[in-house]
Amino acid sequence: MSEEEAEAMLLELKEKAELMVDLAYSSILYDNKEIAKEVYELEDYIDSLHYELQKLAVEDSKKGELEVDETLAIIRLGNCSELIADAAREIADVELRDIELHPVIKESILESDEVILRVEVNENSILNGKKLGEVELATRTGMWVVAIKRGRKWIYGANKNTDIKAGDILFVKGPKEGVEHFISLARGEEKEI
Amino acid sequence: MSEEEAEAMLLELKEKAELMVDLAYSSILYDNKEIAKEVYELEDYIDSLHYELQKLAVEDSKKGELEVDETLAIIRLGNCSELIADAAREIADVELRDIELHPVIKESILESDEVILRVEVNENSILNGKKLGEVELATRTGMWVVAIKRGRKWIYGANKNTDIKAGDILFVKGPKEGVEHFISLARGEEKEI
Repeated sequence: MSEEEAEAMLLELKEKAELMVDLAYSSILYDNKEIAKEVYELEDYIDSLHYELQKLAVEDSKKGELEVDETLAIIRLGNCSELIADAAREIADVELRDIELHPVIKESILESDEVILRVEVNENSILNGKKLGEVELATRTGMWVVAIKRGRKWIYGANKNTDIKAGDILFVKGPKEGVEHFISLARGEEKEI
Repeated sequence: MSEEEAEAMLLELKEKAELMVDLAYSSILYDNKEIAKEVYELEDYIDSLHYELQKLAVEDSKKGELEVDETLAIIRLGNCSELIADAAREIADVELRDIELHPVIKESILESDEVILRVEVNENSILNGKKLGEVELATRTGMWVVAIKRGRKWIYGANKNTDIKAGDILFVKGPKEGVEHFISLARGEEKEI
């Protein structure tokens, strides 16, 4: 594999695994089985990506392009993302079992320094019709878009070119202190980002 | 256990496990064995906290204060944090083995949408002498303090009352777009947060 390929695979494993944890906690917080199922699907994807990375790393080692230590370190880091993804699936599993959860569970997720927020974008919101990069949401509000639900479609791994539209349901993550401002922005009550 | 206790324990497990992952990746990124060792110590702490939570949940179930399903859900979520903490220790382990890592590993961590930054606070920085809450760092810059190294001491889990002092080395996490602004603030080149 080229170095670019190895880097892109490790990066994707790391990011997807962390996304899965966020989504899994969101599924419990908002009692949303759809998100929990998405975590399951991402887990399957991670499994195959992980296998691909291991295979290419060992092949490159055989070809003499990677030292044994380097190969092992790449394999170990891939394993770590896999472990985190497995944990995320277990969290989602708590949501998928059809049982009533004790309120302390939701509260403990809500009380984290970093919270996950679910908010709908209003027609009058300053966010409506903008690209994520344009509004510099993350740097200005501290809130980070984890996922967008648009109609029946889910958008994960949004980037600066992703449009925000009225009716979008944004799942954002960030410091507790940023929650109020972000809700006002999305609802169109506050016009200054 | 009281509901407050259960909630606080679940919350602490969740937050510490996520902190460990951030610290573990930082240890690789900055080739810092000290941080990696801290991850190991946090893992021991998580183990005992996790055991305590399980014990109390089962005792409460026996006392009739928790339903079986509720008890199991609490135990499962604690397990998930433990899994994430284990993954973090594995990541730290990659740093602690005395081997040269292939550059793609650091690059893949650096290229994440959320990056971990290590920056020293200058005497002239607007951050010097302020409390974290006072400067609203997270909401205004998008960057989140993961750890502070002050002289030989490490501060983890900083909150709004934590002071920032000249000479502090801040490990912060946030969107790539926030990096430049944050570095200028810490160095004292930029005075507007």
